[in-house]
Amino acid sequence: MEKEKKLVQEITSMEEDFAQWYTDIVKKAELVDYSSVRGCMIIRPYGYAIWELIQKQLDQRFKETGHENVYMPMFIPESLLQKEKDHVEGFAPEVAWVTHGGDEELTERLCVRPTSETLFCDHYSKVIQSYRDLPKLYNQWCSVVRWEKTTRPFLRTLEFLWQEGHTAHATAEEAEEETLRMLNVYAEFCENVLAIPVIKGKKTEKEKFAGAVATYTIESLMHDGKALQTGTSHNFGDRFAKAFGIQYTDKNNQLQYVHQTSWGMTTRLIGAIIMVHGDDNGLVLPPAVAPIQLIIIPIAQHKEGVLEKANELKERLSKIARVKLDDSDKMPGWKFSEYEMKGVPLRLEVGPKDIEKNQVVLVRRDNREKVFVSIDELEEKVSEILKQIQKDLLEKARQHRDAHTYVAKNMEEFEKIINETPGFIKAMWCGDEACETLIKEKTGATARCIPFEQEQLSKHCVCCGKEAKHMVYWGKAY
Amino acid sequence: MEKEKKLVQEITSMEEDFAQWYTDIVKKAELVDYSSVRGCMIIRPYGYAIWELIQKQLDQRFKETGHENVYMPMFIPESLLQKEKDHVEGFAPEVAWVTHGGDEELTERLCVRPTSETLFCDHYSKVIQSYRDLPKLYNQWCSVVRWEKTTRPFLRTLEFLWQEGHTAHATAEEAEEETLRMLNVYAEFCENVLAIPVIKGKKTEKEKFAGAVATYTIESLMHDGKALQTGTSHNFGDRFAKAFGIQYTDKNNQLQYVHQTSWGMTTRLIGAIIMVHGDDNGLVLPPAVAPIQLIIIPIAQHKEGVLEKANELKERLSKIARVKLDDSDKMPGWKFSEYEMKGVPLRLEVGPKDIEKNQVVLVRRDNREKVFVSIDELEEKVSEILKQIQKDLLEKARQHRDAHTYVAKNMEEFEKIINETPGFIKAMWCGDEACETLIKEKTGATARCIPFEQEQLSKHCVCCGKEAKHMVYWGKAY
Repeated sequence: MEKEKKLVQEITSMEEDFAQWYTDIVKKAELVDYSSVRGCMIIRPYGYAIWELIQKQLDQRFKETGHENVYMPMFIPESLLQKEKDHVEGFAPEVAWVTHGGDEELTERLCVRPTSETLFCDHYSKVIQSYRDLPKLYNQWCSVVRWEKTTRPFLRTLEFLWQEGHTAHATAEEAEEETLRMLNVYAEFCENVLAIPVIKGKKTEKEKFAGAVATYTIESLMHDGKALQTGTSHNFGDRFAKAFGIQYTDKNNQLQYVHQTSWGMTTRLIGAIIMVHGDDNGLVLPPAVAPIQLIIIPIAQHKEGVLEKANELKERLSKIARVKLDDSDKMPGWKFSEYEMKGVPLRLEVGPKDIEKNQVVLVRRDNREKVFVSIDELEEKVSEILKQIQKDLLEKARQHRDAHTYVAKNMEEFEKIINETPGFIKAMWCGDEACETLIKEKTGATARCIPFEQEQLSKHCVCCGKEAKHMVYWGKAY
Repeated sequence: MEKEKKLVQEITSMEEDFAQWYTDIVKKAELVDYSSVRGCMIIRPYGYAIWELIQKQLDQRFKETGHENVYMPMFIPESLLQKEKDHVEGFAPEVAWVTHGGDEELTERLCVRPTSETLFCDHYSKVIQSYRDLPKLYNQWCSVVRWEKTTRPFLRTLEFLWQEGHTAHATAEEAEEETLRMLNVYAEFCENVLAIPVIKGKKTEKEKFAGAVATYTIESLMHDGKALQTGTSHNFGDRFAKAFGIQYTDKNNQLQYVHQTSWGMTTRLIGAIIMVHGDDNGLVLPPAVAPIQLIIIPIAQHKEGVLEKANELKERLSKIARVKLDDSDKMPGWKFSEYEMKGVPLRLEVGPKDIEKNQVVLVRRDNREKVFVSIDELEEKVSEILKQIQKDLLEKARQHRDAHTYVAKNMEEFEKIINETPGFIKAMWCGDEACETLIKEKTGATARCIPFEQEQLSKHCVCCGKEAKHMVYWGKAY
């Protein structure tokens, strides 16, 4: 029975079929289950615990930068959605419409929020009067709905969980500062908490958010060489303010429009963790977002003193880490695989011989390194190794990304790279949308961003050969 | 300008018009704002901060009792909602229906969850196979929608925030234990965190949850003598298990149905806090859910050393409480009213004379008691007073409730009490739904609960005079 269950837990290898490997992990690490609603996922306890750790650490950063949480309605009246022209064009095709309440047909359709700019703007137009009311630095944790055709757990779902920051400022400069501040918060969070290195940059006109003046992004590279947009931060200028009439009286008693931003991160971050750190044995979690950081597995637990010692160690270590002791009647080997599948960063084995020697075995999930540690210095060693894992995962991901970042000087090189060695492609661009479109048609790659750190790879656009304006990161993306 | 703004902040007195007093507080303490969507509220930063404190302390209790958080989809296919007969009858009339996704009409309508029993059952039917999989102790924090005709902020809104616990157990006994365990968690939370005393009891058949075998409730009395159902815990027996086919193999290899529970608390708790503790100067918050527990207001802040001292105290006190320093250029008197309106439990005033004497003034929001405290023993005193306020608010609310709890032996007495001295009415009941209905028709009062603590007030039903089975708490309710 147990054996059978275990065999089922084996997963497709990454090399063989990356998409199937991903699906296997989300199911077998018990992160999600499919639901009766097309494209909507059930986030199971283990998956949700990861999301709670993400939330907690992001929320702390939002509060430290002066933001306050609020809650807006989940419905948007059709007329409100339509107030900003570009915004409605971008979102109307992919919203869910509520047409009936109980038995009655509504006089105006309501859409389930795909994002809440329009609701925040409507509220801001009421509560902002004077320069004293600015800035407004709001954030909301909620779920949103976008009627996607094809979906994959975490990466693209009809409904997903996210946070959306919405701010209003007195000047264009302050709004731009905020947009970049939050992009930097996102980047720092990705690197230090998720152990995912990111490229910071600006989206092209074609790729920017519906209604934005400028969209900034952080882009990460997954293990299969595809890019993932990990977070975005938008500067709206005064476009929404003009559409919604959000004005304030400045110090000179003049009426001015506010300048706004919005920025969001979603449950897709969990997809990024899987695809950046995972391996053929399952999930690999950075300690900062691991619901269980250390799993204690007793060896020969029926022998005298073993479970007692395991419990004692659990109690001690619970003060410095999130610890679980598995004293179920499964064989140690099964337990090893189970917690490897779940990506628990560190495993502690303790058996009769170890106890005799006043030691335990610690095994790292990421590189399987095994060390014997004296029980006397256990707290110190566990803390140290968890920190080291967090650091090493980031470094490994950075090395992988750098090793899969290529330079293309012409379309021949570009196409060869895309087809043979998937990854980021750095290439010069003239700034013309026609070239961007042509590159996409020819290769399937999109402009991921115009990175802040520019390099002069050549003087010519990779596509048309005309004078280049920017270096761009290109890639196929999730 | 400031003066004008302040005058606007005066609120209707409680005695004059309780409903208007309530509305004034939610608006002027900046808890909510109305939105463009009928019956949906915007929870503003101050209101949401209260909700976050409620969430944090409830969630901690859920986790301590072994529960895990999950996230289910917000949509329920019509066919799934219809699986349990009583449940669909109870909820179908008040749900919002999604009929279109983007431009396409859906083949099956989806309702926005009014509650998620059906989704949890669907999931449980897939993930529960063996007795080893039980119990499942899940909870979810989310928003739900019920298409109400008349709405009031926090008390009754089309959309509200809540938590819903959903559990599955091997036996009927375990399910009943869980139902009562969570009712007790709710009661303890209400008393110790919200400082709201509750009556624990069982709902009548007429008042129980759609689909439940038994509903338990905690009921509180508001300042105007109306009752508020503060939390409920339902035992479903195996009714949903049979409708959804949730079976497990027991230790003897026999197929059995699980037994289930659900329990929930909502943002209406914030309405309860307002109506139990508030007064004619505004909100009064128990320290345990006060976003600001102590407000520091400098007196003559332009004088040398005042702001410096105020900042020093803020830094010191921030280690033991949630503290804010208001050093804006408003007059101290305006600030006093503002933070009274917001219900901040404790005010600290510090001016040049206080500094000379090495003291500050502390003023309690609840009873306006004013004490001079030496700066040397400030931490100790502040902690002590905050604890005392928390305790006194509960005691005051208990006294109010007890003073407004009456006994009626016949319908004449019942009607006289309802009309002249609103409050809880304890009265005997034969157990017949006809009497329950008649009492409601005659008086507007409903059976709030059959309390666990029964008293034998008389041998006769208050309505029909036949043999009484239970003592019931009756009251008009929100």
